[in-house]
This record gives sequence, structure tokens and C-alpha cells, in this order.
Amino acid sequence: MDLGLDMELFQTITVEDARKCLMQHLKWKQDGEKVFLDEAYGRYLLKDVLAPEDIPSFDRSTMDGFAVRAGDTFGASVSLPAYLKMAGEILMGQETIGFLKTGEVWAIPTGGMLPSGADAVVMLEYTEELNEYTIGITRPVAPGENVVRRGEDVSKGSLVFRSGHRLRPQDIGLLAALGMAAVEVRNPIRAGIISTGDEVVDANETPRPGQVRDINSYTLYGLVMESGGLPILYGVVPDDFTALHDLMMKALDENDLVLVSGGSSVGARDVARGVIASLGKPGVLFHGISIRPGKPTIGAVVKGKPVFGLPGHPVSAMVVFDLLVKPLIKYNCYPDEKGNNLEFPLRAYLTRNVRSAAGREDYIRVKLSEKDRRLCAEPVLGKSGLIATMVKADGLAKIPASREGIEAGEEVEVKVF
Amino acid sequence: MDLGLDMELFQTITVEDARKCLMQHLKWKQDGEKVFLDEAYGRYLLKDVLAPEDIPSFDRSTMDGFAVRAGDTFGASVSLPAYLKMAGEILMGQETIGFLKTGEVWAIPTGGMLPSGADAVVMLEYTEELNEYTIGITRPVAPGENVVRRGEDVSKGSLVFRSGHRLRPQDIGLLAALGMAAVEVRNPIRAGIISTGDEVVDANETPRPGQVRDINSYTLYGLVMESGGLPILYGVVPDDFTALHDLMMKALDENDLVLVSGGSSVGARDVARGVIASLGKPGVLFHGISIRPGKPTIGAVVKGKPVFGLPGHPVSAMVVFDLLVKPLIKYNCYPDEKGNNLEFPLRAYLTRNVRSAAGREDYIRVKLSEKDRRLCAEPVLGKSGLIATMVKADGLAKIPASREGIEAGEEVEVKVF
Repeated sequence: MDLGLDMELFQTITVEDARKCLMQHLKWKQDGEKVFLDEAYGRYLLKDVLAPEDIPSFDRSTMDGFAVRAGDTFGASVSLPAYLKMAGEILMGQETIGFLKTGEVWAIPTGGMLPSGADAVVMLEYTEELNEYTIGITRPVAPGENVVRRGEDVSKGSLVFRSGHRLRPQDIGLLAALGMAAVEVRNPIRAGIISTGDEVVDANETPRPGQVRDINSYTLYGLVMESGGLPILYGVVPDDFTALHDLMMKALDENDLVLVSGGSSVGARDVARGVIASLGKPGVLFHGISIRPGKPTIGAVVKGKPVFGLPGHPVSAMVVFDLLVKPLIKYNCYPDEKGNNLEFPLRAYLTRNVRSAAGREDYIRVKLSEKDRRLCAEPVLGKSGLIATMVKADGLAKIPASREGIEAGEEVEVKVF
Repeated sequence: MDLGLDMELFQTITVEDARKCLMQHLKWKQDGEKVFLDEAYGRYLLKDVLAPEDIPSFDRSTMDGFAVRAGDTFGASVSLPAYLKMAGEILMGQETIGFLKTGEVWAIPTGGMLPSGADAVVMLEYTEELNEYTIGITRPVAPGENVVRRGEDVSKGSLVFRSGHRLRPQDIGLLAALGMAAVEVRNPIRAGIISTGDEVVDANETPRPGQVRDINSYTLYGLVMESGGLPILYGVVPDDFTALHDLMMKALDENDLVLVSGGSSVGARDVARGVIASLGKPGVLFHGISIRPGKPTIGAVVKGKPVFGLPGHPVSAMVVFDLLVKPLIKYNCYPDEKGNNLEFPLRAYLTRNVRSAAGREDYIRVKLSEKDRRLCAEPVLGKSGLIATMVKADGLAKIPASREGIEAGEEVEVKVF
């Protein structure tokens, strides 16, 4: 082992530059499938969605009360009600046929269809029944009051969702309202996951002395699922050029992106880098990003697909995943200057001083708690390789590259796990 | 239609009291299943997990360098290095056999197993190779430096996760490290979902004039999925006592909880309440909670299972789901005074004045944006029944019951969708 010669003081680039590099070379084609609404939760729309019809498709009451012409109620008060003729009753779920004339009221339930001629609804509370033919109105209504007009919620032809939007529960509700019982969504990004390391064995093996079980494959599996991707596990390979090369070629063939983690020793990192460089053009774009943890990250594009060599430390691998891999799986790109695809981090008050180095983004594990209605972030102490610290933590607090540290009581941004 | 007599000025209770009422009568038995780690993401642990072994299972180096006895390096400096005998080389993934004696160094890679006798590792950067038998140490190390001790990450027998913990990516990584290739998780809470309303038709039907499509079933479906539950759709029934009763009995039989939504008109609400009251003991616990939107909510427990009559307005149904149903699906209980199961809302600055009524929690839809590194919450205007407003919004800002409004520039808590 020639430790001295293998040491490489690699040049680091910023996260932003790493993202730009990757996007310049990334070539994904968008394909999709049509799914029913009960399979649509969390999926990403393949195309823009335009409303095929108006919602609601008729003028609808939002209150139990009486449909009126607003003009007939002007000036009405408790001391001087407007007396109108009870001329009809609207039934729920039925077409309202007929025409409401000046001087008339029609009884209407919440959600009922307004008759033509009517332009407002008076709430039941502001009426009195004089006799079965006459209703007194004790408060005036404006035109449109207590009514949702046809197309007021969504108008036919309007843009409802942009392509790439991830479907939340209420979005699926709106698609249902529009009668779109199925919707075209992107196929999830397939992410091949490989762990390397002569010392690494799978979770269901018993490690011999000197060996450890594979943590990163399973952590990355969960991270890919959380981001809406489809993780495929390729298992563990030793730090052997041919074995790793063959498995990576297979994973590259079968997936949209490939994640290799491990190789925490210098020798192993070299094998991983050598293999990634051998896979094809344009190959390795950067080796080293100015963040901690996560510095020894390799970023490459091969045949238009991104390939990442992630650090072996589970904590570092998670930080890099969050910054470089997750946006690609979720949005197929990174947040831009226009504020697209921004995610909103929590803000919390740091409970201890934390040091950092200028020119490097630091991510520290924190535990969150609520104290006097302030959200506090307590740094989780422990060496960076310890998976238990990630399990104890609720999220990662960011120390920007411009700062050399944060003092207790200062506000930090926290990404919650 | 006897509108006057059906009006009911129901007494409202607070969210906190509603939660207490429900928990007093709720009787769920916890059952579970064993799943492999690649199916464990997002599931809830059935039992406490104790570490079956130490992590790491041997003293491990966190650096490329040389294993030493720390005492041999004390006083070392660049001008006066400690010269030690190169006496061995540790290979990755292999058992380290032998004993490191005073005055010796053994070469060790990151992740390598320390030999007995060694208690620290000197980083490669702080060494110089004098000749092939002698290494100069230019900086002292303390005992334990650059080493993770056996059991330092997780010690055998320690509590790793509490029962009920939802498995995040790093948690699955830790289970893998512990060799737990499968884990016992709770069966997801099965939630039966029913929509009522004479005017409501399913998403794949074409509504006639006066009819609307079912929004709530699909929104609730997504919300149950998001919370880690298993939603079962029972479709739409008209406001008919027998039809609703029979379907609810079936849903109650087949699920852990039942959600009925709709009945936005007074008559329909009465049908839903009457049916829920007829299902069994203890029955309806409250009708009306002091929140807006969401006031006309019915809470019941039947045969130990919760049954909710949710408002017909999609926005109201979502707010009530978030406050009363989601915690039950996620944790089988509500947040307590000890701060268990707290979720941390975002805090943002409101951009407009918003009025509210004291004694009532208000939830207003807001759109989030970042401005001068401050998170801003812009109220989404529009009538509360409009699903489009929920789609435009990023979350709900809470106006506490103690306030009569929030002024522009004040901070609010926002639950992000």
C-alpha cells in the first residue's frame, strides 16, 4: 500500500457549479404512463393539465337559504324587511328548471343549483317566514353573494397544473372534480444503487471481524423512495475494478441514474473514480464539492445519465443525496433563480455556537424542540461517521459558505428528514 | 323542506377537548407484520427495537493513516517527530491479528480494524516515511482519536427506536447495520372513506345539471396515504338513512376508522348525524368544533373505532383531517404535553392583515415565497368552498383562538401540504 502517492488534494467546486455541470450534460427523455386517481398520489404530472370543463358547472349556493335577485333585497332591515313571494323550492342534485322573477324567492339548500334570474342567496338566518307564501328578508345581499358562479372555482381551458407538478391530496381531488379519472404521470426515475468496499457485507450476512454491514444501500433506497423515485438495489461489490465496472454498466443500462457509495478509504475511492471515468462520455465532471460532510463526492454523466460516487460515510452520503440527487429525482432539474422548485426549510434558533470554515457549506445534525414557542435546534454531537447521530437528529442545519460559524441564538435553516 | 326547524346552533368544543373525548373511548388493538427492509420505508414500528449487537463490532479507524499507542506520540512535532517502527499493515475487511507493541505503528486504511494494543490513529498528513521501517509522527494524538470504538455508534442492548417510530431512510440504514434484514411494523390503519350527498356523483360519471363530482373521496384517499394509512373507497351514497347506514356498518366492519364526508346542506348533515348516532356505543361524542373552516364536524367512537363526519367543503374536510384524523393514523394518538409526536410547523411572515374571531382557531390558506431571505405567507383569497384555492396554496396558516386577527408582518405557523 503506497499511501503517500495515492493522496490527492482534489479541487472542490461549489454545489451550485456542480449542479450546472450536471445539467449541461444531462439528457433524459420524459416518458410516462396513465394511472387511475387512486394510484396518482405523489406522482409527477407528465404534461400541463388544462381544465376540460367549468367547476362548478352551474351557479351554486354556498348556504342554506333563499335564492333572490339581489336588487330586491336592497334596503331591507330587521325593522323594515323586504317581503318576497315564496315561489319555488330547489332540490339537491336536481336540475333547477324555471325562472326566478323579480319579487320572488326560491328556497335553496347549500350546494343547490340557482334558477336563472337569481343572482344571490340570502342566508336562512337573515329571513323570517311571514306565512307559507311570503318570506321577509332582514338584511340585503350583493349580487353574487353566497353563490359560486359557474366556472368561478376553475374555468374551462384554464391551466390547472404545470407539467412536473407532484400530486398532493387536494390536487387529486381537483382532478376528480374535473372528471379526469385517470391522469398521465411521469415514470418514476429509476435509481440503481451499488455499495462498494472490501469490508462491506449485505444486511443479511454476518460480518467477520473487520467487516461491516452495508448501511448506505438501504439508506439510499429509502431516500430514493421518499423523493418519488424507484430504487433498484444491486448489492455490494468489493473494490475491484472489473467487478465494479461490470455491475455499474449493468446498472447504467437498466436505470436513469446510478449511485455508487462507499470506498471510504483512499484506495477504494480511486477504484470507484477509475471505474466511473471508464464508463463513457463525458464522464467525470467533478471530484470534490465544497461542503462538509460530503466533500469527496464524484459527479459524472455517462450517456446522458447522471452517475454519482457518494462518500462511504452514511451521514455524508445523505447530505450529498439531498443536495444533488433528490432534486433530479423530484424535478429532473435543480431550483433556479426564478424560485422554481424551491423547498422551504424550517428556521430554528441554534442552541450552541458552531464553528465552520469560510468558503464551505457545513451541514450539522440537529435535534428540534419547541421552547417558549420558539423552534430550537440543538446540535447532535458525535463523529460524522456515526449513523446513530443521523437517527437521533431531526434534520440538518445549514451554515452558509459565507460564514465562519454560527453563534448560539442565531437563526439557521433546517432541512427536516 | 322545513328549514327553520332543522337549524341547530350546535355547541362547539375545542380541538383539544375533541381529541381527549376520542382518546377516552378509542380501543385499537395493535397488530403487525414482518417486512423486509426494502418494504419498510415509511412504516411504523410495532415494538421497541433493541440493538442485538454492537456497532461497530470492532475498533475502527476513521482515517487513512497509522494505528499507534497514543502515548508514543505525545510531544511529537514537525521539528521533533516521534519515530516509530513500521510493524504491520492492516487490510480492509480483514481481521487484524496480532498485537501492536509500544514504539510500533501499523498502516491502516479508513474503516480498517485496529490491532489490539493500539488506541488511536495518526492521520497520514501528520506522518513522514523516513524509510520502509520507520515512520515519523509530526503531531500527537489523544487516546481514541480517529477511532470509533466497538459499540460507540450503537451499543448492544441499547434502545434504538421506540415502538410507533416511523421509519425514515437513515433508520432503515441503521437496521441494516444491525443485521435486522426484516422488522416488525404496524399494519397500516385502514380508513374507510364514504361520500354522501344527493348531488354527488363519482369522478368517472358525467354530472347532470345540479350535480357535482365527488372531490372529498379522492382528497381523503391521498391524505390517508400521505399519513401512512391504507385508504379504502366506498364511493358515493345519497342522503338516505338506510343506504348510508348499511354502507357505514360495512365500512366499520372492514376498517379501523371511518370517514364520512359531505352533507353540506342542513338536511344532509342531519342524515349523516342520525346514521352515525345509530351505529353503536358510545356513538357521537361531539358535533361542532371551534375552528374555521371545519366547524360542523361530527366525532364519534363506535365499537372502539373512531368515526368522523367531515364537512362537505373540501377545504374544511382537509383542515379537520389534519387536526383530528392524521395524528390517529400516524401515531394512534395525539401530541401530548410532553412534546411527543409534535410536528414542527414552518414559521412565516404574513403579508396582509387577517381578521378572526376570538375563541376560534382559524386556518387560512397561504402561498409561500422567499423574500430577502424571509419566508412570507400570502393569504390565498377566495371563498372557502373552492378547491382551486387549496391547490394554489402551499399550506395553512394558523390564527390561534386567543387572537382576533394577525397583522401584516407578524409571524404565523404554517402547516405545509
